Amino acid sequence: MNFLNIPTVDLDDQNHSLVLLDQTLLPNETVVLRLQNRQDIFEAIQKLRVRGAPAIGVAAAIALYLAVKNGTFSCHESFFRALSETKAYYSAARPTAVNLFWALDRMENTAKNAADKPIAEIIRLLREEALLIRDQDIESCKKIGENGLTLLSPGMGILTHCNAGRLAAVRYGTATAPIYLGEERGYHFHVYADETRPLLQGARLTAYELTQSGIDVTLLCDNMASYAMQKGLIDAVLVGCDRVALNGDTANKIGTSGVAVLAQYYHIPFYVCAPYSTVDFSCPDGGHIPVEQRSADEVTQLWYEKPMAPSGISVLNPAFDVTPHSLITAFITDRGVIRPPFEVHFKEKL
Amino acid sequence: MNFLNIPTVDLDDQNHSLVLLDQTLLPNETVVLRLQNRQDIFEAIQKLRVRGAPAIGVAAAIALYLAVKNGTFSCHESFFRALSETKAYYSAARPTAVNLFWALDRMENTAKNAADKPIAEIIRLLREEALLIRDQDIESCKKIGENGLTLLSPGMGILTHCNAGRLAAVRYGTATAPIYLGEERGYHFHVYADETRPLLQGARLTAYELTQSGIDVTLLCDNMASYAMQKGLIDAVLVGCDRVALNGDTANKIGTSGVAVLAQYYHIPFYVCAPYSTVDFSCPDGGHIPVEQRSADEVTQLWYEKPMAPSGISVLNPAFDVTPHSLITAFITDRGVIRPPFEVHFKEKL
Repeated sequence: MNFLNIPTVDLDDQNHSLVLLDQTLLPNETVVLRLQNRQDIFEAIQKLRVRGAPAIGVAAAIALYLAVKNGTFSCHESFFRALSETKAYYSAARPTAVNLFWALDRMENTAKNAADKPIAEIIRLLREEALLIRDQDIESCKKIGENGLTLLSPGMGILTHCNAGRLAAVRYGTATAPIYLGEERGYHFHVYADETRPLLQGARLTAYELTQSGIDVTLLCDNMASYAMQKGLIDAVLVGCDRVALNGDTANKIGTSGVAVLAQYYHIPFYVCAPYSTVDFSCPDGGHIPVEQRSADEVTQLWYEKPMAPSGISVLNPAFDVTPHSLITAFITDRGVIRPPFEVHFKEKL
Repeated sequence: MNFLNIPTVDLDDQNHSLVLLDQTLLPNETVVLRLQNRQDIFEAIQKLRVRGAPAIGVAAAIALYLAVKNGTFSCHESFFRALSETKAYYSAARPTAVNLFWALDRMENTAKNAADKPIAEIIRLLREEALLIRDQDIESCKKIGENGLTLLSPGMGILTHCNAGRLAAVRYGTATAPIYLGEERGYHFHVYADETRPLLQGARLTAYELTQSGIDVTLLCDNMASYAMQKGLIDAVLVGCDRVALNGDTANKIGTSGVAVLAQYYHIPFYVCAPYSTVDFSCPDGGHIPVEQRSADEVTQLWYEKPMAPSGISVLNPAFDVTPHSLITAFITDRGVIRPPFEVHFKEKL
C-alpha cells in the first residue's frame, strides 16, 4: 500500500463502514480498519486509533450517519431519539475534542432542519453532510497551508509537537499543511518533530508521514526542544490544537504550553494552525476547558515487555494543556492569519 | 536485598573489584556488579550502569586505584606511565562529566605528590584517596541537604529532572539530599519526577529510589512540567548538574534548560544542587562546555521489541544542555547557598 493513497478517515458505503487507518499501529504496521458497530468506533476514538481534531470530527460525522443508516424507525420521534442518544454516546469518547462536538452538532442540526422530510431523505442528507464535512476539511487544510506560507521562508527550521499532520485530518493536516505545500513549492523546510510522550505521536506519526512524503525531518525528545532552540535550529513553531477559547487560550496535546514558553524565551514565533471551526465561542478562556486525565499505564508501561517505572507509582498524565494566549504569535486558519487581540479578530472573521 | 543497604558505588578489596549497582536494570532488577577489568568499567561508565557526576567520580577514582593495585612495575616511570595512560582511557568514557576528570586528576596528583615514595606506598595512598573521595561525597551531599532545607518549607511541591539522587552519588544524592533530610525532619515534600527521556532516569531511578525510601513521588513525562507548574503543584525545582562554568552556566541532563525556562516563566525558584567541586574554574561560560551527542537508537528503540519511530529517521540526541546562569536562582552546594553574581560568589567560597 502506498501511504499517500490511504485515507486517514473515510466512508465505505458498500461495506457500511467507517474506514480508518489504525494510527496506534504506525509506524510498524499499516492497517486499514473498516468499523461498523458503535462500540468499535467508540473504542477507536477513545484509544486514538483515529486522532487529531479534524479527523475525529469527520469520523464522528460518518459514525453518526452509519448509526442511523440501516435502522428501522417507527416514527420521526424514535429516529431523533436514536440520533440524539448516539450523539451523546460518541461525545463521551474524547471530552476535550471540540471538533467532535462540533461535527456531531452539525449533523444533528442537518437532521433537525429536515425534520419535515421522510426519514430516508433525512438519512440521505446526513450522508451528504458527513461527506461535506470531510471535503471541507480538505479544503480548509489547503487554505491553512496557503496562509501559513505567507509567514514562512524557504529553508526555515520548523518545530512541531504531536501530530497535527495529514494523519490528524483527511489530507494535508493543519500544522503540516504549510510544510507539505511549501515542499511542493521548493521551500525545503527542516522539520523537527517532538516525539510527544506519552503516546509518541510525533515519533510514530509525524516522523512517519513526513518521511513517507520525502520531507526532511529530525526526531527529538520533548525535552530537547530547548536545546534545539538555543542552538538556532528553530525559526518557527507550528502546532495544531484541539480547542481554542474566545480569548485565544488554546488546548492542545500535553507539552504544547511548554513549547510556547520556550518559543517566547528564545524569541521564536509560535503559530497555532487550525480550522476556524476550532474556535469555541462558548468558551471565554482556557480556565473553562476541561483537561482529560488519562491512565497511568500510558506513562509507565507503553508497549514495554518490562515496566519502565516502579509498580504502583503515582502518575500525572494529563492529555492536554492550555497555552495562554499571550504566548501565541498568531493563529493560522482557513480564514486567514489571526493576530492579537484574538477575541476581536476571531469575531471579525465570523 | 534491602535497597537502602546497597551502595551505589564502592570498593571491594577482597575481590579486587569496583562494586556498582547496575542502574540500567532498575527498577526491574537489582543487580550488583563487581567489575575488575578496565573494559568492563569503561563500558559501565559509558553505558550509564553508573551515572551521576559524584558517583562517576568515585567510580573513576576506585577504578584508577584498581588499575595499578596489582600491577608489576619495573620502575617509577613505568608506574606513572601506566597511571597516566589509564587516566586518559577512563576520561574518554563520558566527555561532559567534570567530576570524572576532577577525580582522576585528584588521584594522579596524590600519586605525584608521593613520587619519592616506594610504589607500594603510592598505591596505598591511592586507595586512601579513592575512599576519601567516596567519604567526602557522602559528607558533601549531607551538607547540600542541610543548606537546601534553609530554602524550603514543609509540604512544598518539588520538581526534579533526571536523577541526582542517591543513585547518582554514594548516599543522599545532591538534588535529593534536601528531600531525604527533609523527610527525616517531617517536611513531607511532594516530589514530582520528570521521567527524563530518552533513558528515563527519572522514571526508572528517581521514582524508584524515592518510592523505596517512603517519599511521596509522582511521575510525569517531561512535557508535563509546564502543566504541573501552571496548576500550582510546584513550589521549587531542584536539579543536579554535571558541570558548572565560572559564570554559572550549567550543564546537566538534556531538558534541564527547558525546565529552567519554565520555572522562570511561572515564577518558581530553580535551584542547582551540586558539590562545590562541580564548578569548573577553567571554564568561563557554557559556550565552552562540550555536549555529548549520543546514538539515535536511544530515542528510536529504547527497550522496545518494535521500533517506535520510522526506520532510518534522523534523530537529535544531545545528552546534556546548558542552562544559562540567568535562569538559575541559586546553587545549593556543600559550601553554602550561592546566589548571583555567581562568578564573584564562587570565588569567595574557594
